[in-house]
Formats: sequence, structure tokens, C-alpha cells
Amino acid sequence: MDIPLILITNDDGIHAPGLRKLIEIARQFGDVAVVAPDKPQSGMSHAITVSSPLRLFKQDEGDGYVEYSCNGTPVDAVKLGEQIVLGEKPTLVLSGINHGSNASVNVVYSGTMAAVIEATIDGIPAIGFSLNDYSRNADFSAVDDYIKTIITNVLKNGLPEGTCLNVNFPAVPKKDIKGIKVCRQAKGRWAEEFDERLDPHKRRYFWLTGVFEDGDTSPDTDSMALANNYVAVVPVHYDLTAHKAIREIEKWKFEI
Amino acid sequence: MDIPLILITNDDGIHAPGLRKLIEIARQFGDVAVVAPDKPQSGMSHAITVSSPLRLFKQDEGDGYVEYSCNGTPVDAVKLGEQIVLGEKPTLVLSGINHGSNASVNVVYSGTMAAVIEATIDGIPAIGFSLNDYSRNADFSAVDDYIKTIITNVLKNGLPEGTCLNVNFPAVPKKDIKGIKVCRQAKGRWAEEFDERLDPHKRRYFWLTGVFEDGDTSPDTDSMALANNYVAVVPVHYDLTAHKAIREIEKWKFEI
Repeated sequence: MDIPLILITNDDGIHAPGLRKLIEIARQFGDVAVVAPDKPQSGMSHAITVSSPLRLFKQDEGDGYVEYSCNGTPVDAVKLGEQIVLGEKPTLVLSGINHGSNASVNVVYSGTMAAVIEATIDGIPAIGFSLNDYSRNADFSAVDDYIKTIITNVLKNGLPEGTCLNVNFPAVPKKDIKGIKVCRQAKGRWAEEFDERLDPHKRRYFWLTGVFEDGDTSPDTDSMALANNYVAVVPVHYDLTAHKAIREIEKWKFEI
Repeated sequence: MDIPLILITNDDGIHAPGLRKLIEIARQFGDVAVVAPDKPQSGMSHAITVSSPLRLFKQDEGDGYVEYSCNGTPVDAVKLGEQIVLGEKPTLVLSGINHGSNASVNVVYSGTMAAVIEATIDGIPAIGFSLNDYSRNADFSAVDDYIKTIITNVLKNGLPEGTCLNVNFPAVPKKDIKGIKVCRQAKGRWAEEFDERLDPHKRRYFWLTGVFEDGDTSPDTDSMALANNYVAVVPVHYDLTAHKAIREIEKWKFEI
């Protein structure tokens, strides 16, 4: 069997400890190329850089390993990784390990998961990993065996067409993790509270802040799996069509 | 019946002709508040501004009308519009009219549709409008009656929970538009071709460019509707779960 070629990115930037952990695990599976943003890109979602030039900066190189930072978004990083750094499709794209949960509606804002979805659009199996702890010194020591078994399964079974995985870890010691649950994205939302201030020139400005409201307590959601100390695995696709609504809207009377 | 309160944004920025056209039509339905980015934000997807302060700049004010630009993304604009400018939930959120198609996979990268999805997360009926012409002087003269009948239907019927509309217009004279088709998001992708250059210091840089590959020729897609001169209406939701894949992945053997 050929040695897998694994492309890795994240949205917390090239220096994030979660990225280092994921690189360490991935190198046990094959050759690794890292292309990660040179600065934090949380909340960048699926943004791409169309109006300014992109650059790649080589950070490291070794046996079966190459590492670049780039001045773009996580999605730019995947595109540069495929087209410029590798010049071929990798076997697998990994993103993370994100410092903070990407469960529930967070998947919509997440740069980590946007990178994964971008790879999926290109037909490459891809997995995003996130730990439910936003701090820089989050403890990633419990995740190794879970990440390994998930990567092993994806390399062995592949993924359904157009589908990737959103994996979220509870921030608890390994002995407290109850196992893996395959689940659906919970319904939830960020209730924004702008922090309004005045600058020295008495002009208003606003910091975006917020409180997460998770009103979805069904047992089959990623949020509930996380809350109950399970590793939450959600199969994700990028067909945003609300298929069930098509029939309903077809009944409308459009008058021109 | 109360006068509808309509919040409008876009991703081409406050000065875009497509935005002006949408404002002109929306004011025939009720009171209008505009909060639009102060510069083009195409390709910003669902990005939010978390690491720098946001500002609002009043541009215009009149009877049942207020207009602000902001220094953020389209999603920031919706949040600022709801929380700061209006301080209440609008009846309806409109985004566009985008200069360029948001059919097929473009919905994933689109700032126009991200604004619409953000409103949907907040439980507000929302519609994104796009014209299949990227030029600044695109001809928006054919769209009025179509936009009016779609807004009328949404105000009358509402939208299914968690669902919004992605409306794309063909760039043809009104007499050539064959009608409205309710459809699904086509499968397609951008085949990237980075334009690689050397700066005056002989360092490489890259411009992101690309060719759209639309391999999905089913008659029920937005791309095919557009290609056949129909107005394409896709009901969109933000549940990214690939529900059919859950069963399959549950069969995997996870070994810890």
C-alpha cells in the first residue's frame, strides 16, 4: 500500500499547540505537509483571499515532512497546499486540533471546518478536530487514541461522497471520556451582545462578543454528546439545499 | 397589518449598484434599514470580526429609512443591524443584489448568502438575490417584478423553520426570462489556478484565480435553471449534517 500523503492546516495559526499535536499524530500515518495561517484565523469561516496576493513561507523540512505558513485563510491554506506545495491531491486533509468547540452552529463560523469542507469539495477525505477548551494551553493529552482510530477508519473505509467529519472532544481527562458518538449538528445560536465603547475622540466602536444558547437537548446531537463526555463525530456535507422545503415553495403563487 | 421593517445588506459594499436597486424595491414594502460593508467583501463567506473593533457610519436618513456602512463583514453587518441600528428583530432581511452568481457551490463562499444565513440562525425570514453578471455596471432592469413577487410570498407565507432563499437571476433581458424554478444547489467546484508571480525582491506571490467546473447537468439544479434563463430559487438551511451518512459511520469499528 502507498504511504498516505496527509495535508494539515488549522485556523488558530502555525504556532498553535493543537496543530503541533495533530502533526505529531499524523506523522505516524504517512508523509505530512503542513500549510497553516501565519496568524489566528478563528471565525473566518469559508473566506477566501481574492483581492490581495498570497504568500507561502517555508518553516521546516525533514524526512517525509514539509511545513509552510501562509498569509491567508484556512481555505486559502488548503488551496495553496494542494496546488502549490504538493502539486497533487493528498490522501487525506486534517484540520485542527482547534482550541475551542466546533459543535452545533459553530461549524458555520469555523475556519477549521471550512478548510475541511474545502478539501471535500475537491473530493479529498477530510477530518476536522476540535477540543472544547478555548485556552492556548488546553490539555490535548487525552485525544491521541481517538484521533488515531478515526484516521485509521477513514483511510480504510473512505467517506461517503461529498462528506467529511467534524470531530469534537470534551475537555476532560482520558479516563472520563465515555467513547465515540456519531451524531447530528445541534441547533444553537450565539446571542450577541456588542460591547459598546467610546474611543479617545468620543466616537463609538463595538466589540463582538456573545453568549452561546444551546436550546437543543436531543440525545442525538453533538452538543449533548460533548456535554456527556463523549467524542462527537458529525458527518458534514456542503449541500445547503433544504430539500424538504422545495415542494412547499413550489406551491407559492408567483405573479409577474 | 404592521408596516414591515426590512434590514438590507450585501457583500459588494455600500456603493454597489445592486444594493441601490434592492433598496429601491424594498422601500415599496415597508421601512428600510441598510447596514452594508464600507468596502467589497466578496468571498468572505460567514466570517465574523472578533479581533478588531467594529464601527458604524451613518450615510443617510429619511422617512422610514436609515442607512449605515460598517467596517466589518456581511455577517457583522447583520448582527450590527439587528442589535445596534434597529435594537429589534426586523420582519425580513434582504441581501444583494449581488454582482455575480451565487448558484451551485458559490453559496459556500458567498458573503451575500452568509448574511442571509445569519438572519436565519436568528429566526428572521431572509432572502439573498444575485445576478449572474460580475460587472459593476451589470443590468438590473429585469429583476423588479421577480423580486417583488418573491418578497410578497415570503411576507405572506413565511419560510419553513431554519430555511432561507437563495435567488439567482440570469443576466438576460426581461422578455427572455422564462419564469421561476424552485431547485436544489448544483454540484460544482472552482478548479483553482494560482497565478504565480515574483515581486521586485524576487519573492514568490500568488493570486487566487480559477475556472468554474459545473459537472452537474440535472434539470433540477440552480445552475441548469440559470443556464436556461429561469430565475433559480433554492431553499437553503444551515444544518450541515450529512444525515444519511450517520448510519454508515456508526458501523465503523473504533478501537481505543
